Amino acid sequence: MDRSRLEAFSDGVFAVAITLLVLNLAVAGPGHSNPPLLRQLGNLWPAFAAYVLSFFMIGIIWVNHHVVIRSFKAVDRTLLFLNLVLLLFVVLIPFATATVADYRLSDSKSGRIAMMLYGLVFLGMSVGFSSIFEWSLHGERRQQPLPPEARWAARARFVAGGGVYVLAIVAALFNAVAAFVIIALVAVYYVFERTPVAPPPGDPEASDK
Amino acid sequence: MDRSRLEAFSDGVFAVAITLLVLNLAVAGPGHSNPPLLRQLGNLWPAFAAYVLSFFMIGIIWVNHHVVIRSFKAVDRTLLFLNLVLLLFVVLIPFATATVADYRLSDSKSGRIAMMLYGLVFLGMSVGFSSIFEWSLHGERRQQPLPPEARWAARARFVAGGGVYVLAIVAALFNAVAAFVIIALVAVYYVFERTPVAPPPGDPEASDK
Amino acid sequence: MDRSRLEAFSDGVFAVAITLLVLNLAVAGPGHSNPPLLRQLGNLWPAFAAYVLSFFMIGIIWVNHHVVIRSFKAVDRTLLFLNLVLLLFVVLIPFATATVADYRLSDSKSGRIAMMLYGLVFLGMSVGFSSIFEWSLHGERRQQPLPPEARWAARARFVAGGGVYVLAIVAALFNAVAAFVIIALVAVYYVFERTPVAPPPGDPEASDK
Amino acid sequence: MDRSRLEAFSDGVFAVAITLLVLNLAVAGPGHSNPPLLRQLGNLWPAFAAYVLSFFMIGIIWVNHHVVIRSFKAVDRTLLFLNLVLLLFVVLIPFATATVADYRLSDSKSGRIAMMLYGLVFLGMSVGFSSIFEWSLHGERRQQPLPPEARWAARARFVAGGGVYVLAIVAALFNAVAAFVIIALVAVYYVFERTPVAPPPGDPEASDK
Repeated sequence: MDRSRLEAFSDGVFAVAITLLVLNLAVAGPGHSNPPLLRQLGNLWPAFAAYVLSFFMIGIIWVNHHVVIRSFKAVDRTLLFLNLVLLLFVVLIPFATATVADYRLSDSKSGRIAMMLYGLVFLGMSVGFSSIFEWSLHGERRQQPLPPEARWAARARFVAGGGVYVLAIVAALFNAVAAFVIIALVAVYYVFERTPVAPPPGDPEASDK
Repeated sequence: MDRSRLEAFSDGVFAVAITLLVLNLAVAGPGHSNPPLLRQLGNLWPAFAAYVLSFFMIGIIWVNHHVVIRSFKAVDRTLLFLNLVLLLFVVLIPFATATVADYRLSDSKSGRIAMMLYGLVFLGMSVGFSSIFEWSLHGERRQQPLPPEARWAARARFVAGGGVYVLAIVAALFNAVAAFVIIALVAVYYVFERTPVAPPPGDPEASDK
Repeated sequence: MDRSRLEAFSDGVFAVAITLLVLNLAVAGPGHSNPPLLRQLGNLWPAFAAYVLSFFMIGIIWVNHHVVIRSFKAVDRTLLFLNLVLLLFVVLIPFATATVADYRLSDSKSGRIAMMLYGLVFLGMSVGFSSIFEWSLHGERRQQPLPPEARWAARARFVAGGGVYVLAIVAALFNAVAAFVIIALVAVYYVFERTPVAPPPGDPEASDK
Repeated sequence: MDRSRLEAFSDGVFAVAITLLVLNLAVAGPGHSNPPLLRQLGNLWPAFAAYVLSFFMIGIIWVNHHVVIRSFKAVDRTLLFLNLVLLLFVVLIPFATATVADYRLSDSKSGRIAMMLYGLVFLGMSVGFSSIFEWSLHGERRQQPLPPEARWAARARFVAGGGVYVLAIVAALFNAVAAFVIIALVAVYYVFERTPVAPPPGDPEASDK
């Protein structure tokens, strides 16, 4: 099993999951009991907001996935299954997005639980990513082995990444919109971030990104 | 991140989005209250028309996407996110198509708003494309740098492309069918067009297309 | 635009279309008014039959698509759009399959019309294929140019292929099951066929299949 | 037809099928007659359990598919169609998963039949896999021909694999949960398994996995 097959399969899953997000957007046709289209589209704003956020989140995970996978020498069965765990949570994103859209970021108990579910899916994804990174630290798995002092710094970055999702889940206990904003800030951070995710400073690969 | 990964992921999204268009086509099964199949299929004509137009539009965007991406030297994080913006609108096409089909190109207020939504999605896609092109003009990003005098001509082409969608949106204020025809003419133009989208005259790449 | 991109995009569409066939299979959950699962699964036999036939038909079109595309030297814009026409009909197969399944191959008028729709979709696909083949006969487009005397024989094969679907459509006017059997025989023929679709006898490519 | 195209198409089908599993997860929006979200999510536990199991099963089939296909020298038309048979059952997994989720692993007659359906789909997949393996034993199809004494051992492994699904189907006659646990044990076994599926001991390919 070479790296390119793992990437091709994962890319397929990312591409289908990101496209399935559109199934959460739907309006009712013309009919006596349906509101006019303009009002329906206006009512759909939580669905559009959740669509845009989830679209960029999946896009970011895809970008980071390649940066991480590219830094490995080879693929073994353990990595394949850790990768499956990561993808299992990526595929849940359209479900969590639909739930958030249905409950409209409202401040009802159900609205807050929908946002907790959304945060939990990203937390699971983050744990999957951290496991893949941890796996890469053992044996001769990285093209550029991380020096011991850089490992804890890198681990801290992964824990911090997961910590933001924990924060979002806790915030969702009190306010759904606050949790949504936290995850949106994660997306904005990654879009504008220029540091590569995993390689240490001085990694020659890092310069061509 | 090399160019081929960007293309593979984008191709996946294009392939899924173009195939999801079929989900807008559905008839009700046999039943006392359902009209006979032939009448149902006849009633489905706006859905078929929207299916064919959106299918060719996504196909055209896919073709142009490759022509444009192929002319770049390398891929950076900015391009990845501009490309995500483009794909965000491509993935909305099945939703806008379903809305147009549901409101049957009718001249009701909702029918006109459905067509405006359809035009807006293509306008967003067009803005995404123009941003990618603009990105390519700075730094050493193109395999064949555009001479300064060709840049404004190329920019004008992109603005004109977006302008046609603005025209379609304005036309939709008055008549849904007129807006549909305008976008259909864009599709016909691109199918029969022989000029490559971005490379300037004299570009050696242009000769092998 | 090189051949491999055309193949990758087409493969994506084939893969999504063949997998979407499963959405036509669904049972109702437990409930007072729903029949027990075993009876529901039994009632679903037309859906299973249509699933299996459409699955193999899409698989066959995919196999033949590669044999045909592989015999070309290069890809131009005309081929891209002829290929889009072919894919437009391939993507319609899940819709036609769902319609045939809903109307249960019954001998009602609607059941016969559902089968005509099914045949029409394959006829459209066949016309798309023939256009691609015809395109390849002009200019220097084939890796192994067909000698003039072989062209008519090859064209005759394509017309015969389309003719079988015309026969199925005509048969559907009288009996839905007969039309279904005719298309099933096409599938069986292609599964067991050993002759390559397009290359002439003596084509060195033909020997490695 | 080279091996890489077969792999690309199969990967696409695997990626779409594994992602479509998410469509089985859905909650009702807020409404007078709908239970609160937390209770709905709790009620969804059979759907989550079936999602996780099917996700790993498809992932495992994907991994094994590549190990097996990689050991072949070339691809012929027979293999393409045996592979289609395998994929036909893989694509049924989301349907069987949805049925199991709907009937909630309950010990009603319908709950047991849903689990039998689930087992049958995996049995069909297993038979498809065995046929592909059997095909590879004849002619010069393997990169490393299996010595005659290893063939029966390998066949026995495939029969044993299928036998576990037969056991699950029989168990489902008596208890749906027992059958679910048996298939879950298959998944656990393959996740932790370190032996390659098909290659004999001494196969140089086996060492790089």
